[in-house]
Amino acid sequence: MKGFRIEFERFINDLQDEICVTLEATDGQARFQEDLWQREGGGGGRTRIITNGAVFEKGGVNTSAVYGLLPESVMKYLKTDFSHFFACGLSLVLHPLNPYVPTVHANYRYFELYDDAGEVVDYWFGGGSDLTPYYFFEDDKTHFLSVQKAVCDRMGPNLYSRYRSVCDDYFYNKHRSEARGIGGLFYDYLRADKEHSGSFWFEFVTSLGHKFIDSYLPVVERRKNIAYGERQRYWQEIRRGRYVEFNLLYDKGTLFGLQTKGRTESILMSLPPRVRWDYDFIPEPGSAEEELLLALKR
Amino acid sequence: MKGFRIEFERFINDLQDEICVTLEATDGQARFQEDLWQREGGGGGRTRIITNGAVFEKGGVNTSAVYGLLPESVMKYLKTDFSHFFACGLSLVLHPLNPYVPTVHANYRYFELYDDAGEVVDYWFGGGSDLTPYYFFEDDKTHFLSVQKAVCDRMGPNLYSRYRSVCDDYFYNKHRSEARGIGGLFYDYLRADKEHSGSFWFEFVTSLGHKFIDSYLPVVERRKNIAYGERQRYWQEIRRGRYVEFNLLYDKGTLFGLQTKGRTESILMSLPPRVRWDYDFIPEPGSAEEELLLALKR
Repeated sequence: MKGFRIEFERFINDLQDEICVTLEATDGQARFQEDLWQREGGGGGRTRIITNGAVFEKGGVNTSAVYGLLPESVMKYLKTDFSHFFACGLSLVLHPLNPYVPTVHANYRYFELYDDAGEVVDYWFGGGSDLTPYYFFEDDKTHFLSVQKAVCDRMGPNLYSRYRSVCDDYFYNKHRSEARGIGGLFYDYLRADKEHSGSFWFEFVTSLGHKFIDSYLPVVERRKNIAYGERQRYWQEIRRGRYVEFNLLYDKGTLFGLQTKGRTESILMSLPPRVRWDYDFIPEPGSAEEELLLALKR
Repeated sequence: MKGFRIEFERFINDLQDEICVTLEATDGQARFQEDLWQREGGGGGRTRIITNGAVFEKGGVNTSAVYGLLPESVMKYLKTDFSHFFACGLSLVLHPLNPYVPTVHANYRYFELYDDAGEVVDYWFGGGSDLTPYYFFEDDKTHFLSVQKAVCDRMGPNLYSRYRSVCDDYFYNKHRSEARGIGGLFYDYLRADKEHSGSFWFEFVTSLGHKFIDSYLPVVERRKNIAYGERQRYWQEIRRGRYVEFNLLYDKGTLFGLQTKGRTESILMSLPPRVRWDYDFIPEPGSAEEELLLALKR
């Protein structure tokens, strides 16, 4: 079996460059700082962090490509007897300064398993992208989703609705009966099957990756100059607490990364810069803050 | 079998009153706000929160007493076939304003299982108390531990060292190879056995509970007026992030509470008021901030 290791690794590295250059131009003030790191068992990564920007208070656009032997726990989780693996991906999280600009998360990844002779025995793609606003604007949701819907619809029917609902189910804070954000796409284990080739899924995931900037940046541009004050920042910090709760309680990538001794600082770059936990904070009835909560409730 | 349900419930409620009155006097500014809540399956609790005090920026001293049927998952976890239970406890977390005053956590709890006839078939005690400073003072550690050691030593040899090391093992952020705090005691499943009666463990846990104020308050008194600035607050917020990481990634009480549909706001009162996550924050070599890290490394 021939996988997409080389092509996908090239894709994530090119996409990282493209996204970082664009975000720096949008920010106009801060630059990405790069940290290269190596993994003991094989491979490594390129962590790029932006801090204290005019637009982005904190963000990371990271790539990694690691290989070697899977821990027993992961083999069990993946229900496989093969232990030689390769995994690579791009992960990004952006926490804007202005509370009217939503936080965004995206991830594009690829996984390969090998037999003892080093032959590829299985491979699959995964990823997604979702929006977490502090104030709800229907227009932003529509734009963010429509760009991704266009990519899906070009490639086949049902793809959009299928991965849209997986996203809603996944990014959910069960203990608060509240979605983390207002949606996006989420997909995993995209494999060659009777219906679709490996090339189809490669095209699907990379096309979505190349459209990330188009889906998010216009939202940033139209909100980044809205005036805000302490009230909006306070609310932003409260909501960021919910983001932390999801990432540390439920997010598989985060928990998997920490359990498998990934690079802690690269994994936890997803956590917001400043966060607040008030006891039982309830927004005023009829306020813009309450409007967001209503959009996040099922 | 006769358990300690009535006696232990009285103990936690009395202790809650005693601790809250003392902390209010120490704070001199803020008062505890009380929320009574009821649990759908049986029982409820008394949540008491202090906020924006002169000494305590945020804190909770909560009691709960719940009963009913255990979820399957908990029965599995406890390796029991009995599903009727009673559980009660006091949980407190105090996050002081002044970064020179350590955060403290304590918990005293009691659990009973019943057969179908309503007879007690098993019961046990648990709890502990541990200190999480932002700056390391050997004196504070010594005082906090020595009060608890005196209680243990009065009741038997080895008790102190046994539960002291359980605490070190438990409050540990594996992903950072760093202890959450500088220690305390931690014990669970304290049952009547050949060596000790149920009354012995009742006496052990309640004595430790009654000594909580003596172990912590002198530390507060001697640090609460030390002058601090932005640098110390910044560090405090960074360190509080590690506290959040432990509680959401590892703390059994928190995860168990959220999974069993406990009252979210009462459980998450443990999270600090304001928190900061910087990418790869490393304190200056030789600084007081680095000194704390060295005290937390194994």
